[in-house]
Amino acid sequence: MSVATSTPAFNAASSNASYPVLLTPGPLTTSERTREAMLRDWGSWDADFNQITARIRQNVLRIVNGEATHECVPMQGSGTFSVEAAIGSLVPRSGRVLVPNNGAYCARLAKICKVLGRKLSTIDYPESQRVSPADVDKALAADASITHVALVHCETGAGVLNPLHEIALVVAKHGRGLIVDAMSSFGAIDIDARKTPFDAVIAASGKCLEGVPGMGFVIARRSVLEQCEGHSHSLAMDLHDQWVYMGRTTQWRFTPPTHVVAALDAAITQYFEEGGLAARGGRYERNCKALMEGMRKLGFRSYLDADLQAPIIVTFHAPDDPAYDFKVFYQEVKKRGYILYPGKLTAMETFRVGCIGHFGEAGIPGAVAAIADTLKAMGIRQVTAPAVAA
Amino acid sequence: MSVATSTPAFNAASSNASYPVLLTPGPLTTSERTREAMLRDWGSWDADFNQITARIRQNVLRIVNGEATHECVPMQGSGTFSVEAAIGSLVPRSGRVLVPNNGAYCARLAKICKVLGRKLSTIDYPESQRVSPADVDKALAADASITHVALVHCETGAGVLNPLHEIALVVAKHGRGLIVDAMSSFGAIDIDARKTPFDAVIAASGKCLEGVPGMGFVIARRSVLEQCEGHSHSLAMDLHDQWVYMGRTTQWRFTPPTHVVAALDAAITQYFEEGGLAARGGRYERNCKALMEGMRKLGFRSYLDADLQAPIIVTFHAPDDPAYDFKVFYQEVKKRGYILYPGKLTAMETFRVGCIGHFGEAGIPGAVAAIADTLKAMGIRQVTAPAVAA
Repeated sequence: MSVATSTPAFNAASSNASYPVLLTPGPLTTSERTREAMLRDWGSWDADFNQITARIRQNVLRIVNGEATHECVPMQGSGTFSVEAAIGSLVPRSGRVLVPNNGAYCARLAKICKVLGRKLSTIDYPESQRVSPADVDKALAADASITHVALVHCETGAGVLNPLHEIALVVAKHGRGLIVDAMSSFGAIDIDARKTPFDAVIAASGKCLEGVPGMGFVIARRSVLEQCEGHSHSLAMDLHDQWVYMGRTTQWRFTPPTHVVAALDAAITQYFEEGGLAARGGRYERNCKALMEGMRKLGFRSYLDADLQAPIIVTFHAPDDPAYDFKVFYQEVKKRGYILYPGKLTAMETFRVGCIGHFGEAGIPGAVAAIADTLKAMGIRQVTAPAVAA
Repeated sequence: MSVATSTPAFNAASSNASYPVLLTPGPLTTSERTREAMLRDWGSWDADFNQITARIRQNVLRIVNGEATHECVPMQGSGTFSVEAAIGSLVPRSGRVLVPNNGAYCARLAKICKVLGRKLSTIDYPESQRVSPADVDKALAADASITHVALVHCETGAGVLNPLHEIALVVAKHGRGLIVDAMSSFGAIDIDARKTPFDAVIAASGKCLEGVPGMGFVIARRSVLEQCEGHSHSLAMDLHDQWVYMGRTTQWRFTPPTHVVAALDAAITQYFEEGGLAARGGRYERNCKALMEGMRKLGFRSYLDADLQAPIIVTFHAPDDPAYDFKVFYQEVKKRGYILYPGKLTAMETFRVGCIGHFGEAGIPGAVAAIADTLKAMGIRQVTAPAVAA
């Protein structure tokens, strides 16, 4: 199928000159200033570079008020590398991990446990529900062999925000460890180490901090990290080793992605300039609200109940029209200046639109207009599925 | 100690405006064009980006003439992540790896085997010697349980070039697998898959291809890779899984370092424009020759015999003078526009100077002049150690 474009590529909202705005949950659209931080080469052994690493580690701790209790250990690779590093380094080889599972990233956590040979229990939910603290309470009470709970904060599969604080209190009450995959929430949704007990919170450079992808980090409780020597299944992903070496030398153990590190440092500077978590989270909230309202007016239904929705990424039901085809829809919206994200639900056809990234106030209305225009160009009339008969 | 600078920071050879030239074996100095490729954000799901990944994979195979027999599987993280991925994915859990050990990167290979629970044998050499194919032959003849040999091509610890081709023939004769860490040689020193049998050659973006650091790749024999399902100790570093997924979807399994990937693609384009391996290797050879001659004139002795020296990085004995202190020496040379590399030998004091990276013909003479000027500023007279009494 081929469709004529009636609107020229529109991306006034982007600082990426003539390139599309990424409405994807990382990699996302970054600022020019962040990308320009990559125009210099750095020696990985050099003190100038190692000061950047030190500054990032401090600033990340500051975001969660974790300076007194936690350590930030950066790790090369995508966010999943940091998640695997945290599981492998913090959970002893004899440990058992409970994964409350309400989506694709929870399933990935569970898979990591399996591959690493850590014993695994799960509590399984539909992708449209949040994890229940009461269920976690029951599971921990019933099985004393569970040493750790591994929770996804914002499950980007559907976009659900899980109740981290309440679950953390339950896990602490039982004296177990909590490992949080906060990949897509960190920096936008509040996590306060002084109020919410956790052993590890994991995130990455290319998400709500609006850096470029290529490194992650684990915020680990110092007293826990100190006990982790020899746990890891991996040399490269040994968090304890990385931490000890960095403490001793100020350097990364193995070659750091120097340009990515410099970009993250620049991005964090802008994060604080913008006003930190309140401002960043507020901007994404406004994006999310504008997106949901705009799409509703076009007839789209979002997949989640509003109270479960994190302001990070929104899952929409695909139009219920024979003229709809995701690939064509994607290409047409892209021609109009916006890159969408495919759905990740197993049971039904959906697509996702991210609310995060460095684009101006015109970004979301522009995307909604591009989608409206695409519906017209593709001849899609039936956007909302008719009510399902019982 | 504080020393006045008598020469202003000199880096006419660098395209990095006013920043020092990196004479380090990766990260290294890259071209402006390579760094400018990072000024655009890419969607990791988008076809435009996945075409870049596909092009890199093809071009890397082309460099080793491996298109018919091998597959290039890229991997997030530093080069060590790719080395660990290759060991973990290609060597079955019951396998035994022989590591001929003549330096720090060989020792790292051995450590990876230990952490991953693969049985390990080593042949240990002094850091000033190359690995002997006859020794490998003997070791393989004596122990049928050795399934793989893991060899470092250019051992960057001291700078020794190991005889890859001869060792590969020995390993093939015995019907064992060969895994080559070609981190610092790939693209500059010839490796031809049609002549030199190997199961895997591993390298990274930020070395002789002159990209920025943040990803590596494994060139694996297709028939071997096909048999590797379930070997890996890690989810993130499972080479088989990465390969299968990439073949099916054209995408990386987990978020790729998009900007690093785009920079590598631009760097490889420039690599072929320059004239490929012959030109790149030739340029480094000239750099190495100019460096050794220039340093010899200043009284420096290189650590290795000339016939063992790879044109990648040169180890020099530290000046035998009480006024010498590496940290001060490093800072003073840096002020003059060049970043050196510390020594990595255990037994004696040395420093290293890299010959690789994007800097013009003036780079090496400029570095030698900066070193000469530093010696003067630090009051170092005795550069060459006196002959040691028997």
